[in-house]
Amino acid sequence: MSRVPRLRPRTVMPRSAVAVAACACCLLATGRPASGQVANPNQVLSASQSATATALRDAALKGSGAYNLGKSLATEVGPRLAGSPGDPLAVAWGVRTLKALGFANVHTEKVMVPHWERGAESAEVTAPYPQRLAVAALGGSVGTPEGGVEAPVVGVASLAALDKLDPAKVKGKIVFVDVQMRRTRGIEGYATAVPVRGEAAAHAGRLGAAAVVIRSIGTDDNRLPHTGGMRYGDGPRIPAAALSAPDADLLAAELGSAKPVTLRLKLGARQLPEAESANVIGEITGSEKPGEIVLLGCHLDSWDLGQGALDDGAGCAIVIEAARRLGELKPHPRRTVRVVLFANEEFGLSGARAYAEAHRQELDRHVVAAESDLGTGRPWRLATRIDLASYGWVREISRLIFPLGVATGDNLAEGGADLSVLAPARVPFLELDQDATVYFDYHHTANDTMDKLVPRDLDYNVADWVVLAYVAADIPGDFGRAPAPAQEPPKK
Amino acid sequence: MSRVPRLRPRTVMPRSAVAVAACACCLLATGRPASGQVANPNQVLSASQSATATALRDAALKGSGAYNLGKSLATEVGPRLAGSPGDPLAVAWGVRTLKALGFANVHTEKVMVPHWERGAESAEVTAPYPQRLAVAALGGSVGTPEGGVEAPVVGVASLAALDKLDPAKVKGKIVFVDVQMRRTRGIEGYATAVPVRGEAAAHAGRLGAAAVVIRSIGTDDNRLPHTGGMRYGDGPRIPAAALSAPDADLLAAELGSAKPVTLRLKLGARQLPEAESANVIGEITGSEKPGEIVLLGCHLDSWDLGQGALDDGAGCAIVIEAARRLGELKPHPRRTVRVVLFANEEFGLSGARAYAEAHRQELDRHVVAAESDLGTGRPWRLATRIDLASYGWVREISRLIFPLGVATGDNLAEGGADLSVLAPARVPFLELDQDATVYFDYHHTANDTMDKLVPRDLDYNVADWVVLAYVAADIPGDFGRAPAPAQEPPKK
Repeated sequence: MSRVPRLRPRTVMPRSAVAVAACACCLLATGRPASGQVANPNQVLSASQSATATALRDAALKGSGAYNLGKSLATEVGPRLAGSPGDPLAVAWGVRTLKALGFANVHTEKVMVPHWERGAESAEVTAPYPQRLAVAALGGSVGTPEGGVEAPVVGVASLAALDKLDPAKVKGKIVFVDVQMRRTRGIEGYATAVPVRGEAAAHAGRLGAAAVVIRSIGTDDNRLPHTGGMRYGDGPRIPAAALSAPDADLLAAELGSAKPVTLRLKLGARQLPEAESANVIGEITGSEKPGEIVLLGCHLDSWDLGQGALDDGAGCAIVIEAARRLGELKPHPRRTVRVVLFANEEFGLSGARAYAEAHRQELDRHVVAAESDLGTGRPWRLATRIDLASYGWVREISRLIFPLGVATGDNLAEGGADLSVLAPARVPFLELDQDATVYFDYHHTANDTMDKLVPRDLDYNVADWVVLAYVAADIPGDFGRAPAPAQEPPKK
Repeated sequence: MSRVPRLRPRTVMPRSAVAVAACACCLLATGRPASGQVANPNQVLSASQSATATALRDAALKGSGAYNLGKSLATEVGPRLAGSPGDPLAVAWGVRTLKALGFANVHTEKVMVPHWERGAESAEVTAPYPQRLAVAALGGSVGTPEGGVEAPVVGVASLAALDKLDPAKVKGKIVFVDVQMRRTRGIEGYATAVPVRGEAAAHAGRLGAAAVVIRSIGTDDNRLPHTGGMRYGDGPRIPAAALSAPDADLLAAELGSAKPVTLRLKLGARQLPEAESANVIGEITGSEKPGEIVLLGCHLDSWDLGQGALDDGAGCAIVIEAARRLGELKPHPRRTVRVVLFANEEFGLSGARAYAEAHRQELDRHVVAAESDLGTGRPWRLATRIDLASYGWVREISRLIFPLGVATGDNLAEGGADLSVLAPARVPFLELDQDATVYFDYHHTANDTMDKLVPRDLDYNVADWVVLAYVAADIPGDFGRAPAPAQEPPKK
């Protein structure tokens, strides 16, 4: 995942099964005024549906096989940044995997993607105490001149502090933005810190800086910097890179010596011509309403540094495996379950935009969409963005996955970066929020490798997803249409 | 630390203060038959000595300052492999630090050291699924030809399995030795696994292999390979390198595909002419017997990949800080406490050998020697190598540090890699065994950085060491002479 999530207040349900049923209305108060909201007695699963969902859930918990899918993608493809040699390999992997697993209508849909290439890169403190630093260009950064940029370093503790600096003190310098991301169970820590990654270059560039380096947006203490997307805006385009946490510590310690500190930064990054990629799609055809779609999404691309095992191999493994299990039901669920492996989430949501455009005529038949894009952490909350008149169906899902540790959330779900593009069409979202406690130790680093996939946690994910997808695909009602978005979907 | 420790049975005392006094004899049974061994009633501290030792211990626990020493070395010097540009910087740091802290007789003693240089290095699987691997040459490895070595991979699960292979199946291949080190509190896990690092090249070379790669000897799951020393013996000298654990997983997964796997390995490693380095020495002069020496050692060199904050910046910080505190006593302890920052432990014990040679006339006046070289983990056991007739003094030390969680060990202490060179002179050793549970996550990697220093654990170390050094330096008796070594000190 690469989105810049909005922070929003959340009300979390107490962990009691009774409370799940009793308090749905007030829990939803953050999404919409709850006055008069009552459970619709018609929005309950049949006994047979309940039994099927329970059996699907419990079978997944016994061992889902999702780990093997993630391992396969990490091994046979590995890094697959948009436009890179790994990109078409990933598309081929997606097609052969969905076909091998018995999906119907397996096909690709062309997507043009940007092609940014990292090249060789290095950083070193040249004074007062020369030492090499582990560094990674931020995605989209321009490169430095061939000999690099060498300049005095100005350290700041926030973007706000940077903005207050006298431009005369920044001009020609390398700005170091040293913000430590907090470790949180949800994405609050990331959401708070990630604007540094996205915007530091724009802020520093406006003040005339020669380049900018940031402390990695991550929670680990490894010598492995975190890359990720950034935006220049309309200002000067200056080189931008992340230092690993220990290297940020070192630079801070050198600055703490009260001697002038100079840094040399070399980035070989460059933008190449657009390349062709593809969304990969496969379906479990609905037995009664095949034209109505339950979309399960993930993104097939990854950053270049790691294997993309967590981001987003895990998500693809989860949604593919959950859908595959629905394909074993006879008959299939009533609606079509469509798995979409989106191209290029990380570098501008190209796949999601292409999907929204190619399928614009049928978006009103997208009954619900959900995306998995936060590694293998177990889901702990089910948020929604639906018509609350249909909330009874969500309560049915909640009842089934509450025993797996999933509380109910609010009705302000964003759904996932790719799904944000579907918000204007008011496609309803279901959002299984995962435990992100350790996710940002690995996210966007070389350390995003298959050993970080936790098989047991993947089983929990598949169990939650198979229930969600089955209920959404088989219920006689639907989730209505989602509230109209209050703003445009976030630009990448 | 780089030594290859011997595995030996250990008897650990139950954690009860009563047991410390009551069971010393039977605890020592692994070192020497205990029959007839009784406590010598004369080997007890005076009330004044006891009070001083306790005060030293408790003051260190309140905050030792050792962290700042480790941070200073990591920041101002960082990597300092023997012969590298960091080596003389480290010597200069040692001299200025000991002088600034008030040590007497601060001086260097010349040591000639080997000079091995890593150069650029890379590894990539070229078939069946091309991917780049994080790799580090083992210390002392020859380089590859400039274009690298590309060859099919033969995987083995142990050196013994390698030895059983038909040479025809190994000739010209790259051997992959895939042994997972266990995580243990002591050094058992390391001692069991490290022969793979030391000997894989010799074993594979004998069978005609083109090169050898091993799974890193370490316990982490980071994309940061562990380097360390190795030996060729008399056979062919083939390139040898370590893959990080995730990269070893990937190579194993590719081998698991049952398709032929080929690897390309490029190592720019080379041996340069010997260089000059130095042991750095400083003393707290004894107030009554200045010619009798209590040696506190650490090693000043480090591997090239990290800052050497743990290995062995921590050990130097601990022994310097402990000795410095003794220098504040008026009068000083009776004997001289000599801090020795040994040159080049990692690459052949050059500093220790030079010390033993330069000081051979006074080794019989080395009352005891101890070395700190296992990071910042808290000591949990005090082992010895002394004349057991003097064990009453060890019991006094034990009594004082037992409340810090230190049990008594056996009388088979090796003392530390550098001290092994002093064993033939029967210099007595005291050995504070540290908790190594996480140490081998970082050891010999780029991740050995200052943030891995745990200030509170350093305080515990200093508290243990200051007691040990004070008692050794101030008691009227001594530790006799150590048992003669059963074998030559380990060759590096």
